[in-house]
Amino acid sequence: MSIKNLQDFREKLSQLPLLNSSSEQAAVERNAQLTKPAGSLGTLEDLAIWAAAWQGQHPASFNSPQIVIFAGNHGVCGQGVSAFPPEVTVQMVANFEHGGAAINQLAKAFGARFSVHPLQLETPTADFTTAPALSEEELLTALNVGWNSVCEDADFLVVGEMGIGNTTVAAALCAALFGGKGKDWAGPGTGVTEEGISKKAIVIDQGLDLHRGILNDPIEILRCLGGRELAAMAGAVLSARHKSIPVILDGFVTCAAAGVLAKANPAALDHCVAGHVSAEPGHVHLLQKLEKKPLLDLGMRLGEGSGAALALGILKGAIATHSGMATFAEAGVSDKD
Amino acid sequence: MSIKNLQDFREKLSQLPLLNSSSEQAAVERNAQLTKPAGSLGTLEDLAIWAAAWQGQHPASFNSPQIVIFAGNHGVCGQGVSAFPPEVTVQMVANFEHGGAAINQLAKAFGARFSVHPLQLETPTADFTTAPALSEEELLTALNVGWNSVCEDADFLVVGEMGIGNTTVAAALCAALFGGKGKDWAGPGTGVTEEGISKKAIVIDQGLDLHRGILNDPIEILRCLGGRELAAMAGAVLSARHKSIPVILDGFVTCAAAGVLAKANPAALDHCVAGHVSAEPGHVHLLQKLEKKPLLDLGMRLGEGSGAALALGILKGAIATHSGMATFAEAGVSDKD
Repeated sequence: MSIKNLQDFREKLSQLPLLNSSSEQAAVERNAQLTKPAGSLGTLEDLAIWAAAWQGQHPASFNSPQIVIFAGNHGVCGQGVSAFPPEVTVQMVANFEHGGAAINQLAKAFGARFSVHPLQLETPTADFTTAPALSEEELLTALNVGWNSVCEDADFLVVGEMGIGNTTVAAALCAALFGGKGKDWAGPGTGVTEEGISKKAIVIDQGLDLHRGILNDPIEILRCLGGRELAAMAGAVLSARHKSIPVILDGFVTCAAAGVLAKANPAALDHCVAGHVSAEPGHVHLLQKLEKKPLLDLGMRLGEGSGAALALGILKGAIATHSGMATFAEAGVSDKD
Repeated sequence: MSIKNLQDFREKLSQLPLLNSSSEQAAVERNAQLTKPAGSLGTLEDLAIWAAAWQGQHPASFNSPQIVIFAGNHGVCGQGVSAFPPEVTVQMVANFEHGGAAINQLAKAFGARFSVHPLQLETPTADFTTAPALSEEELLTALNVGWNSVCEDADFLVVGEMGIGNTTVAAALCAALFGGKGKDWAGPGTGVTEEGISKKAIVIDQGLDLHRGILNDPIEILRCLGGRELAAMAGAVLSARHKSIPVILDGFVTCAAAGVLAKANPAALDHCVAGHVSAEPGHVHLLQKLEKKPLLDLGMRLGEGSGAALALGILKGAIATHSGMATFAEAGVSDKD
């Protein structure tokens, strides 16, 4: 059931499964009977209903959340856009594999299975200021890594990334998808200076100029600006939709990849919530474009799916309260009036 | 080691244990070596350092969080300030004891031990518009229920409450402690109408007027405006300080009780974080007065410690990342430059 070719990807993106309205309705009805003043669990109530609708079962489960992380390297790093050298991507993949990164600890803390998928780290994408970052075949390969990484039996999915230089790629994607120039979307990433941010903005503008002919096509934008881990995340988010798995989006880079889907089909992210808003300045604007309100706002800017993984705790609480609470009738508690 | 008398309580509140600066320093040093760009875990980094400082151990542990809930009834309910009848307090205590409430599910979700402490529900406090809510002896009893409820071996404490009518009591406390009139602090609580909120404001102003002679003494404010579950929460928060247990504060009513301590000693809540900001409008202002930035903002307004219990997931993530991540040296990852 992989993606056969880019046309197939476009079809999977245009023919989206809808939510299950009967499980949604069952969740709405149960929510109204639970022993609490109406609405007093706030967003937790919305999440329990949303999860039932998109898992297609009531009550929604929180038994097997999955976290998938993709890693890529970027030709645009040659332009000096990151505070860290590109070999850190390979080193961090080893750290993920040995269980030493932040995301490993969060996966354990919230009982999520975890996998990391390095994407041809020895062959960075082309520098998007001089050529398309990816060929059609490379794009398809990366989309399929993402698509195939999602387990059918997962009940929630967190997607995340690691890739030195990829906030530059994400900012370029945002400008191409949602308008604006490099300076509107470039930020400090792992910690570049003001001068470095200006450099990133110039590099992005060069890329936008080179690829100006394809800026009306979100899939071509993804191919020309890259990179592999962003394509894989787009593939994973779409795969989850086709497998009835609600998604928790992570930070700026993840949301830029998801933005490709949203631009191609405005309903493409209805099965997604924003796990957090990161400290990367572009993320606030991007979430506005995606019309997503973040669950957490804790100044995080690590990537790796870390903000979304932390938000798994919120989902866990939402599912636990909705599923486990007594109703007014069961508990013999008097309702209002 | 109970509180012997109100003078003893005042002494315990003036002679506060300080943080452990060597465990704090150890946490700061380890945090700087972990495999992530400096500061990229945002508030999680601050929380891991804060927890080490106040647990007095590095790394801080998240093995035995404790949730304590106190329930009380209020004479001021006779004034018609709540959307629910006062018998709901007793009914909800039974619901807590049988495991059917929101807080029970959250306690299970985050591995916290849970206890509920009903405080003479059959004998509501006096109506604060006509008399002091509590006698000195009643206040001492309630403070001790809170003090003694905190287990020495807990590593985090969540305090919460249930008590029909207690947002009116909390609003009265806030006005008495931090200034303003009833209208500045009264809100919908469990769901009263605009008319009901106006009624609450008038009732609060009557209480403030009756007790105007003691408004310079936070402990007397607590006694005269009540109620028992708020006094117990104040006792528990102070108890946790003396037992080296960091506290996660819940919503408006919990923070009003904690505000008594803060007003008596500005350092009294240094071992506390605000778990969330609730939808009850007074809570935003109260957190500003307490100089606490909430971890979560999810429109919750249930009480029961539910917002703080949900924030246990954030603490769990903070401790897990700080304790479990590899350092740059351990992982062989190149640091910035």
